[in-house]
Amino acid sequence: MTINRVFRYELPTAIEFGNGAVQDLPNHIKRLNGGKVLLVTDPGLVKAGVAEHVTHVLEQSGIPFHIYSDIEPDPDIEGVMEGRDAAKSEGCDCVVGLGGGSALDTAKAVGLMLRNEGHIRHYVGIGQVPCKGAPVVAIPTTAGTGSEITIWSVLSDKAAKVKLSVGSPYNCPDVALCDPELTVSLPPNLTAATGMDALTHALESYVNKATQPISEAMSVQSMKLIARSLRVAVAQGDNLAARFDMLLASLMAAMAFNPTRLGLSHALAMPLGARFHIPHGTVNAILLPEVMQYNVWSNIPKFVDIAKLFEMPTEGLSSRDAAVLAVEAVRQLKDDIGIQQTLSDYGVKEEHLDLVAEEAMTSGNVPVNPRQPTHEDLKQICRQAM
Amino acid sequence: MTINRVFRYELPTAIEFGNGAVQDLPNHIKRLNGGKVLLVTDPGLVKAGVAEHVTHVLEQSGIPFHIYSDIEPDPDIEGVMEGRDAAKSEGCDCVVGLGGGSALDTAKAVGLMLRNEGHIRHYVGIGQVPCKGAPVVAIPTTAGTGSEITIWSVLSDKAAKVKLSVGSPYNCPDVALCDPELTVSLPPNLTAATGMDALTHALESYVNKATQPISEAMSVQSMKLIARSLRVAVAQGDNLAARFDMLLASLMAAMAFNPTRLGLSHALAMPLGARFHIPHGTVNAILLPEVMQYNVWSNIPKFVDIAKLFEMPTEGLSSRDAAVLAVEAVRQLKDDIGIQQTLSDYGVKEEHLDLVAEEAMTSGNVPVNPRQPTHEDLKQICRQAM
Ligand SMILES: [Fe+2]
Ligand SMILES: [Fe+2]
Repeated sequence: MTINRVFRYELPTAIEFGNGAVQDLPNHIKRLNGGKVLLVTDPGLVKAGVAEHVTHVLEQSGIPFHIYSDIEPDPDIEGVMEGRDAAKSEGCDCVVGLGGGSALDTAKAVGLMLRNEGHIRHYVGIGQVPCKGAPVVAIPTTAGTGSEITIWSVLSDKAAKVKLSVGSPYNCPDVALCDPELTVSLPPNLTAATGMDALTHALESYVNKATQPISEAMSVQSMKLIARSLRVAVAQGDNLAARFDMLLASLMAAMAFNPTRLGLSHALAMPLGARFHIPHGTVNAILLPEVMQYNVWSNIPKFVDIAKLFEMPTEGLSSRDAAVLAVEAVRQLKDDIGIQQTLSDYGVKEEHLDLVAEEAMTSGNVPVNPRQPTHEDLKQICRQAM
Repeated sequence: MTINRVFRYELPTAIEFGNGAVQDLPNHIKRLNGGKVLLVTDPGLVKAGVAEHVTHVLEQSGIPFHIYSDIEPDPDIEGVMEGRDAAKSEGCDCVVGLGGGSALDTAKAVGLMLRNEGHIRHYVGIGQVPCKGAPVVAIPTTAGTGSEITIWSVLSDKAAKVKLSVGSPYNCPDVALCDPELTVSLPPNLTAATGMDALTHALESYVNKATQPISEAMSVQSMKLIARSLRVAVAQGDNLAARFDMLLASLMAAMAFNPTRLGLSHALAMPLGARFHIPHGTVNAILLPEVMQYNVWSNIPKFVDIAKLFEMPTEGLSSRDAAVLAVEAVRQLKDDIGIQQTLSDYGVKEEHLDLVAEEAMTSGNVPVNPRQPTHEDLKQICRQAM
């Protein structure tokens, strides 16, 4: 960053992190003056018994709750309004989100809508929410989105086949309760995809034009943790040290990108995710090496840093050649953890690329990308990933 | 950190950082619903025209203010109550602190006392403050204490010759407005001493037992900035890039130590500062190499990291020998920037050491230190620094 820019940093969410942290949920609910909890989670977590960890803790403390688990992947914007209605009719005055990005993004938006008028659709964009919402505690069960502390809720408008983002400091949960033990049961393919999402956050923020020193420190540490532990978390789901590192990495990546936005992977992930139902982590994993290849010479020092923290053999190389090793490191990681899909596997064809590029180009993640893409550049990145 | 600990991180202060950031003060005052400002600063800054930068910005926006500049180094606890009274009689409902640690610590405490009953003396300790105070914007003019974001106000009880600390999340300013241009006029000796205070924060937090990953990331970046830029800021006061780095380093060091506390330098700095009137930065600079020497083998991996980020020639050495180079690096830095004083220069004698050690031993910075000191150990550290 040059010294000619003013930057801002805020972290409205209080973080509690560690094995067993979920036991502290009742204290947080009390501190936030919560009466009855709406627990927003997905049916898979209810079925797998993960939701029970949370309901058990609430029951033991005598805190009443109602479960709203009607959450699908890529949650629809109407689900937020249904969740809000459920909270109102059940008399819930605070929200606990438990799950991956889908559950947490919905829980956060439900919290907002308990204290803001109208439809969540009115608040799409950045900084459009007028009031702080009801108290929200976010408990992640994947190590990827970082939604437990971000300003963002990404919601689908399935009728219109688009993804909509609500970004506001009021959309940051009051508390992020990060308990690595809750991520142990995540299967290898989801561990891999969500882990690559976290890496994409840390990396896109680190090389982009809006980054700043506090974000950079968080990105570096996040990438180091991922380089060390993502393979192990995929290979040994019950390795608590690796799960700890990955949940921390996704949290720190979110601390990095919250004020900086991201880059072309996330710009393209929005239309590709919405139109072809590619899971968010997977589409980022597919795109990231191609986006890096495209960006690499536009910010060589940062890509050299990345190559080094992946412990690539940079010694004796020119900085340009060392930078290219960062791309190689990420390709190797993606391959090792078994992400072999291409965009074609999800039905993306040449004839779709104009629309995808056009929609991606409207993303706030494009102007911060270290290299300004043309429409054709975006199409070419997709072609490389097909 | 082991994976068996739960850690917490919060940052109640919104940060704005960059050259010219002080121009944004009126927006912050308005956002915080401030009517009339009590500007807490020291007479030196008024005389040097630095306070005028702030009053000019307020005047241009038509924000009324009253100046309270009766702040001395090591501000007395009664000054807080006088500041509170001035705010009340002048009808001020928010506080702007401008200065080094003395002005900012007082400003923060005045903010607290505008919305808490009784005497600030009642709130000494950690977590003793019942209510959020009036809005406070902190504008640092030194790069050292990090008071612009910390939970701490350190105040002197000059009658009792002790320093008292008030620590509470409610004592974090609402906004830290960090403008490196305001630090340009700081003379070399104060730049050196305050810079060593920032280094002591980053370093003591990094090697202590309470540190945690978010703090560690902040400490590392802070120490890198100090290694790169403290010498330059002392040698060339008008070097804005170095001033930028140092103000950022002191901010990031505070982001590191806020949840972790510090170590033996700060434990000893309290009684030595209170009884012998040694400026806080100077006493830390004098003590830090001796404390490092004492601690070094109790946390070898962290001291190796420090040696490396000071670019010491660690290659080919055992980790124990590499760790010792961290001590050498800090001694060199202290010598280069001209801090040659010893404790003896301030009148500290062998006969005082029992009392100093006894008072230091009660500090909350002792139990987190990586090596548990005896009374005699603390005396011996002081002797090394005499
Ligand atoms: Fe993402
Ligand atoms: Fe200090």
